[in-house]
Amino acid sequence: MENSATKNRALGTSSIAYGSPVLIMGSGSVVGQMENEGPLGGSFDKVSDDKNDMFGEDSWEKAESALQKEAVAVTLSKTCAEAGDIRFLFAGDLLGQNIASSFGLMDYNIPLFGLYGACSTCGESLSLGSMSVAAGYADRVMSLTSSHFASAQKEFRYPLEYGGQRPLYASWTVTGSAAFLLQSTSAAKKSVSGSTIKNNYEADYQKKVGITGVTVGRIEDYGIKDSFNMGCAMAPAAAWTIATNLKDFDRKPHEYDAIITGDLGSVGQQALFNLLAQEKIDIRDRHYDCGLIIYDTEKQDVHAGGSGCGCSAVVLSAHILPRLAKGEWRRVLFVPTGALLNKTSFNEGQNVPGIAHGVVIEALDQ
Amino acid sequence: MENSATKNRALGTSSIAYGSPVLIMGSGSVVGQMENEGPLGGSFDKVSDDKNDMFGEDSWEKAESALQKEAVAVTLSKTCAEAGDIRFLFAGDLLGQNIASSFGLMDYNIPLFGLYGACSTCGESLSLGSMSVAAGYADRVMSLTSSHFASAQKEFRYPLEYGGQRPLYASWTVTGSAAFLLQSTSAAKKSVSGSTIKNNYEADYQKKVGITGVTVGRIEDYGIKDSFNMGCAMAPAAAWTIATNLKDFDRKPHEYDAIITGDLGSVGQQALFNLLAQEKIDIRDRHYDCGLIIYDTEKQDVHAGGSGCGCSAVVLSAHILPRLAKGEWRRVLFVPTGALLNKTSFNEGQNVPGIAHGVVIEALDQ
Repeated sequence: MENSATKNRALGTSSIAYGSPVLIMGSGSVVGQMENEGPLGGSFDKVSDDKNDMFGEDSWEKAESALQKEAVAVTLSKTCAEAGDIRFLFAGDLLGQNIASSFGLMDYNIPLFGLYGACSTCGESLSLGSMSVAAGYADRVMSLTSSHFASAQKEFRYPLEYGGQRPLYASWTVTGSAAFLLQSTSAAKKSVSGSTIKNNYEADYQKKVGITGVTVGRIEDYGIKDSFNMGCAMAPAAAWTIATNLKDFDRKPHEYDAIITGDLGSVGQQALFNLLAQEKIDIRDRHYDCGLIIYDTEKQDVHAGGSGCGCSAVVLSAHILPRLAKGEWRRVLFVPTGALLNKTSFNEGQNVPGIAHGVVIEALDQ
Repeated sequence: MENSATKNRALGTSSIAYGSPVLIMGSGSVVGQMENEGPLGGSFDKVSDDKNDMFGEDSWEKAESALQKEAVAVTLSKTCAEAGDIRFLFAGDLLGQNIASSFGLMDYNIPLFGLYGACSTCGESLSLGSMSVAAGYADRVMSLTSSHFASAQKEFRYPLEYGGQRPLYASWTVTGSAAFLLQSTSAAKKSVSGSTIKNNYEADYQKKVGITGVTVGRIEDYGIKDSFNMGCAMAPAAAWTIATNLKDFDRKPHEYDAIITGDLGSVGQQALFNLLAQEKIDIRDRHYDCGLIIYDTEKQDVHAGGSGCGCSAVVLSAHILPRLAKGEWRRVLFVPTGALLNKTSFNEGQNVPGIAHGVVIEALDQ
C-alpha cells in the first residue's frame, strides 16, 4: 500500500502540502435558534428547541459543553462511527481554560489535544488533526470547536443583564458547535481492531471532500485596543495567512474558488481588502466571511456579523463542505480568524492582536 | 537520505513511536527567586533579580509573558539559533485565553499553535512539536510553557492581598518558563534557506537527548470537587497515561530509569501509587514528581509541592535533560499532569478532572 506520509511536503514559510488528501468523512453542526433563523436556516443538523439555547443545562457554560457533546454525537451518527473509532480529539473553545471542551468531551474517553486559537480554533484543530492523520499517527481523528453567545458575553464583555449597547462595528457571537471526522485515504481499507466501524459512511460528502494542505498562522498586532472591534483586530492576521498561503503554494487567488475567512464581519472584510491591496492581492470577487454568511446582517440585530469559534465551524459544516461535495466549488481556502485577548489583558490596556490558520479543502475526484 | 517519517508507528490506544528520535537540541529555563532557593538552585539559566518576580513589568500577567519571551531568547542563544530558524511554536499557559503566550511570543513572528492542557501543557507541546518534526513538517520547532505564582493565584484562587490560608494538601504554583528546541536528525545536515543557523550548537545535551515516542492523554474524572486538591484530581489521569504507555510500548516499569510526573505533589503521588497498584503496576522505586523535585517541601512553605505549567518544564530543562545527557538515566517517561477547571466551573460546582500527556525521552548513542 502506498505510504502517503512519504510525500507530505513542508512548503515555504509555514505551509504543509499533503501527499494524499485527508478525507473529511462527515461533520455535524448544532446551533441556537437565532442561527437557524438566518440564511442557512434548515441546513444545520440540530437546533436548540429552547429560546435561551440552554440545551437542557442550568448554566451557559454547561450549555456550551452540551453543544460540543452533541456535535460529536451527531458526527459519529452521520458517519456510522463509534467513539472508539476516533483515536484523537483536537478541540478548543473561547471560555477560560477550555472548560466547554473539557466538560463536553470527557465522557467520550478519547485522547484529547486541547487547543486555544480564539475564534481561529476551528482552523487550528483541522490543521493539527489533518497533520496527524497525514503523518500516519491516526487513521481517524475528530476536530471540533464551539462558542455560545451568552457564555462569551459573560467571559469577555458585560453580563447580559446589564443590557449594555453594542457598537455598530461589533459582531455577535454564534451559538454553535461543529465536529469533523478526518480519516486517512488508506483507513477505509483496513480493519479497525476492537471496533465495529462500518464502511457504509452515510455523510453527504463522504470521500468527496478532503484537506490537501494547511498554512499555520502567526500573531499580527496592529495596535487595536477596542475589544469590540474584532474585525479590524483580526484582519491583519487573515491578510498574512492568505498572502503566505498563496506564496507558499505558488497559487494565484483565482486558483481558489472561494477564500473564506472566519468572522471578520463587514468592517474587518474591508480592512482585509485594504491590507491585501498593499500586497497587490485582490480577492474581492471570491471572498466570503462566515460571519456574513450565517446571519442576515440587515434583518437580524447582529451589527457587523457573526463571530466566535462556532461561527466558522458551523458554516463549514452546513454550507462550505456541501458546496464542495456538490462540485459547486473545487478548491477553497478556509481561514478562521481569532482575536487574542482576555478580560484581564483588555482591562490592563493591552492591544488585541489576531491570528488566523488556513486550511485548503478540495473536492476530490471519485 | 533516510526518511524517518516512513518508520513512525501508531501504537496501541494512544501512543506513537518515532522512526528516528526527535532531537532536543537545547532548552532554556527562567525562574523566580523562590525556585532558585530550592534543591535545583543554580541550575536554571536565568533567575529573577526582583523578590516579587515582576521581570521588569507592571502586572503579573505581563511578568509571565516576559518569562516566556526570555525562555525563548535563552534557548535561541544557547543553541546559536535565530527566531527565523524556528518554523513553528507550540505554546500555552494557565491564564485565561493563553494571554501569557500570546503577548510573550508575538514579537518573534513565528507561526504559533496555541495549546491548553493546564499543567500538562509541557507534555502536550512536546508531543505535538515532536510529532510535527518526526512527520517532516518542520526541521525545527520550539515547545514551551509557563506559569507564575501570582498570576495563577489571581486567575484560580484568591487575590494575594486577601491573605487566605492554604490547606496542607495544596501545592504552590511555580514561577517559571522553559522552552525546548526540537530538531529532526536530518536537519543539521541541510542548509536553512534564508537563515544563518550555525552548526555549532552549544547546548550541554546537543544531539545527546531525543524524544522517541509519546502517549496522548485523555480526561479522567474521579469526582474531586476541591480545587486545592490538585494532586488527587490529576493522579487518575497520570495513572491512565502511565499504564497505557507501558501497554502500548509493551514495556515494564524497569525499562524506564525514571517515570516522572509533573505536579502531583506528595498527596497525589500516594494516590498514583494506589491507582497503579490496582493495575498491578509498581513504579515506586523509580517515580519522581517535578513538584517534589523543585522545592524542599520541608524547608520551603509550599505544602504538598510545586505545580503549574512551568513546574515540569523548568525541572525537565534544569534537571532531567542534563541527567540524560550525562548518561545517568538512559530512558525516562515524562508525564506532565493537568487539572481541568476554571473559576467558573469550580464555582458552579463542577468536578476537577485531570489529563496527563506522556513523552518518552532517551539518551542517544553518539
